[in-house]
Amino acid sequence: MAERLVVVGGDAAGMSAASQARRLRPDLEIVAFERGGHVSYSACGEPYYVGGLVDSVNRLVVRTPEDFAARGIEVHIRHEVSSIDLDRREVHVTSLDGFESRSVGFDQLIYSTGSRPLRPPDIAGVDSPGVFGLRTLEDAEVLKREADQTPGRVVMVGGGYIGIEMAEAMIDRGWQVTMVTSGRHVLERTLDDRMGELADRAVREYGVELLTEARVTTVEDRQSDHVVSGDGFSLIADLVVIGLGAGPEVELAVAAGIPLGVTGAVAVDDRQATAVPGVWSAGDCAEARHRVSKLPVNILLGTVANKTGRIAGTNIGGGDARFPGVLGTAITRIGPTEISRTGLKVDAAAGSGFAPVIGFARGTVRAGYWPDNAPMAVMVIADKNTGQILGGQIVGGSGAGKRIDVIATAIWAGMTAAELSWVDLAYAPPFSGVWDLIHIAARRAADA
Amino acid sequence: MAERLVVVGGDAAGMSAASQARRLRPDLEIVAFERGGHVSYSACGEPYYVGGLVDSVNRLVVRTPEDFAARGIEVHIRHEVSSIDLDRREVHVTSLDGFESRSVGFDQLIYSTGSRPLRPPDIAGVDSPGVFGLRTLEDAEVLKREADQTPGRVVMVGGGYIGIEMAEAMIDRGWQVTMVTSGRHVLERTLDDRMGELADRAVREYGVELLTEARVTTVEDRQSDHVVSGDGFSLIADLVVIGLGAGPEVELAVAAGIPLGVTGAVAVDDRQATAVPGVWSAGDCAEARHRVSKLPVNILLGTVANKTGRIAGTNIGGGDARFPGVLGTAITRIGPTEISRTGLKVDAAAGSGFAPVIGFARGTVRAGYWPDNAPMAVMVIADKNTGQILGGQIVGGSGAGKRIDVIATAIWAGMTAAELSWVDLAYAPPFSGVWDLIHIAARRAADA
Repeated sequence: MAERLVVVGGDAAGMSAASQARRLRPDLEIVAFERGGHVSYSACGEPYYVGGLVDSVNRLVVRTPEDFAARGIEVHIRHEVSSIDLDRREVHVTSLDGFESRSVGFDQLIYSTGSRPLRPPDIAGVDSPGVFGLRTLEDAEVLKREADQTPGRVVMVGGGYIGIEMAEAMIDRGWQVTMVTSGRHVLERTLDDRMGELADRAVREYGVELLTEARVTTVEDRQSDHVVSGDGFSLIADLVVIGLGAGPEVELAVAAGIPLGVTGAVAVDDRQATAVPGVWSAGDCAEARHRVSKLPVNILLGTVANKTGRIAGTNIGGGDARFPGVLGTAITRIGPTEISRTGLKVDAAAGSGFAPVIGFARGTVRAGYWPDNAPMAVMVIADKNTGQILGGQIVGGSGAGKRIDVIATAIWAGMTAAELSWVDLAYAPPFSGVWDLIHIAARRAADA
Repeated sequence: MAERLVVVGGDAAGMSAASQARRLRPDLEIVAFERGGHVSYSACGEPYYVGGLVDSVNRLVVRTPEDFAARGIEVHIRHEVSSIDLDRREVHVTSLDGFESRSVGFDQLIYSTGSRPLRPPDIAGVDSPGVFGLRTLEDAEVLKREADQTPGRVVMVGGGYIGIEMAEAMIDRGWQVTMVTSGRHVLERTLDDRMGELADRAVREYGVELLTEARVTTVEDRQSDHVVSGDGFSLIADLVVIGLGAGPEVELAVAAGIPLGVTGAVAVDDRQATAVPGVWSAGDCAEARHRVSKLPVNILLGTVANKTGRIAGTNIGGGDARFPGVLGTAITRIGPTEISRTGLKVDAAAGSGFAPVIGFARGTVRAGYWPDNAPMAVMVIADKNTGQILGGQIVGGSGAGKRIDVIATAIWAGMTAAELSWVDLAYAPPFSGVWDLIHIAARRAADA
């Protein structure tokens, strides 16, 4: 009998692992179970579907079960793995349509269940109708139908990436948007205050009413609308969207006895192996090593899911691949303003034993005299003792955001801020100044 | 008496040196002589002034002589240094307006005369009226007046950066543009064939008639128009623009006995010191060390001029700065298509003792399903034996070009293609795919 790989959870990480294992081991039997109605879709594209930029939800599907079948990967959607028996090396699976259950044996298993949205129980009424989250394509379709209604008032609870992207989407659809975040500013977990304040300004300039340091305690469902309230505020909403972040989906792992790490996500080594032989984990549900702090982290990003899935697949396929770590590089936008970040924030840097100093530079995306220009701010965070670059953040107009990749690459290579300040970066007037703002911020960090 | 620094040539390199020396040595007397009518202007912005995007030539002036005077830097425009006497340590200067001459002594001297355009003598009639170059702001003003005439037919001789940018400018002004290049494709000196062909396509798609492997031998001035001809072609033109590149302006240096290097530019060490004590050189007229080949090169870019000028100024000011080298990173555009490159081309890599292999990736700038998308191609060149990244090239739509900086930073840090293929780069659907095309090209180079 052929050796069998069972994939528990068929999104980015699981299907990347399956595809890569298939490339290396044509003989392997591969069976994937996915609770939802789709595998391998772009969750990151959902706000743009709701906002009408992406015209069909099908465009967000990267590969269908049929595509995988053609590669010899058997995919079962709407099939929930209800338990994993590590002793008998089998999973118990229930069809969400037929309700029949069965057991499927495995030789190797990839645990790639992803994340679950945080819906804190301390918000009363958060489960009432008219309150929505955004995670699966099905969620996106539901929200799209809501957005298609006559525009009214929407309250976004949460100021993270989903919050910002959904705020843009709903503004674009003509809705009146209020965003409520408990943070001092939006994206508080990933941006330092100075950059977060620029992000706040961009959010407000795009027409969003933004409440910071405001915690929602109650969502009251009143037939025709909702009242979203907390200490000192009360907002009437036709629609409430919760975007309070997400955590690793580890319920099955805990029940099965697959050990978790300090972050609460599944513990893995740099080959994506769990402590259980033949059981691997990747994506949002698994820990990863932060490349700067060297600490285990649980960063929920599609990039990490794809990369760790590929690493797992290589190793399942008999290779030897090692995941080199994460920086938490991320980018988003609100209207014309791009926001990006990488590495450690100042507080995380200090908490990891560094002596962080900041280099900050403001200017324009393109040459100063360029007519179609936009403001841009860059922050480079470095260690005062060694000069090592620890992190970076950018807020600016079109063309600003992806420049964070330069800082990410510099951090990846272990460069100092002084070294970054001399790198031969590309210049022409439509693209940047002759000294890129990254040069200037890096030099200031080196001199700080 | 105060120590005196004389600046010979007052554009990017010279005035960067002067400004940096001033910061460090408030006591230094600084006198700059510039043959042209402006110091410290953006030559790179000139095509955009001719094209009408930048509305006034004054916007291209970064700092005026008065700005420098306010910092205690004495600037004399339209003053030509006619000779440098290294024994007597003085320069002989002629005012181009009053024609009076004088001698000015120096303790230190920065030789920053820049470049001179190549106007090969083997083109007959190249000096006739109606044939223009583009270098100084005065050239730009002349060309702007020509472009303002009723649009006709312009022939661009040369397929380099100036050629491409002027072609865009003249198309934008309604002219019919023919570009003639002796290369197999445009930008032959900086792009490998595969990317050069994509650049050719972009040039043609923007409406330019492009003749490759065509050498202009004669420009015939016929009262009302010109005939530009060579082997197998003959073009009628109302206006002829020559953009055949440039070489280092070293006439004064040669006459004075300041040694040149193998490239024909002024030889300097990594502190920008020439072989003559107290005499420094920076910018287009000076050599620089290529960071990959380790060979001296003479790359004419504003970025290099600003950086080497700053290095020279720090050392003149008593500091100890060392120029870390160049990659020849550059970017341009033709209409909606961005073209960028860094490091060594394949032929230069082979010529420098490497065993170059190519990783090539094509796709789109943004996520595959993004509506407002554009094609993008990335080439990563690496050494087959060590994996070291040697170069990179990008051709693509809006947002593609500046991504070259990621490859430049990776080369700068000495990374391998395999390492680059895992760097934590930023992803969101409006900006890129979840695997950046740079990842994919790098992986292919690593596997090649």
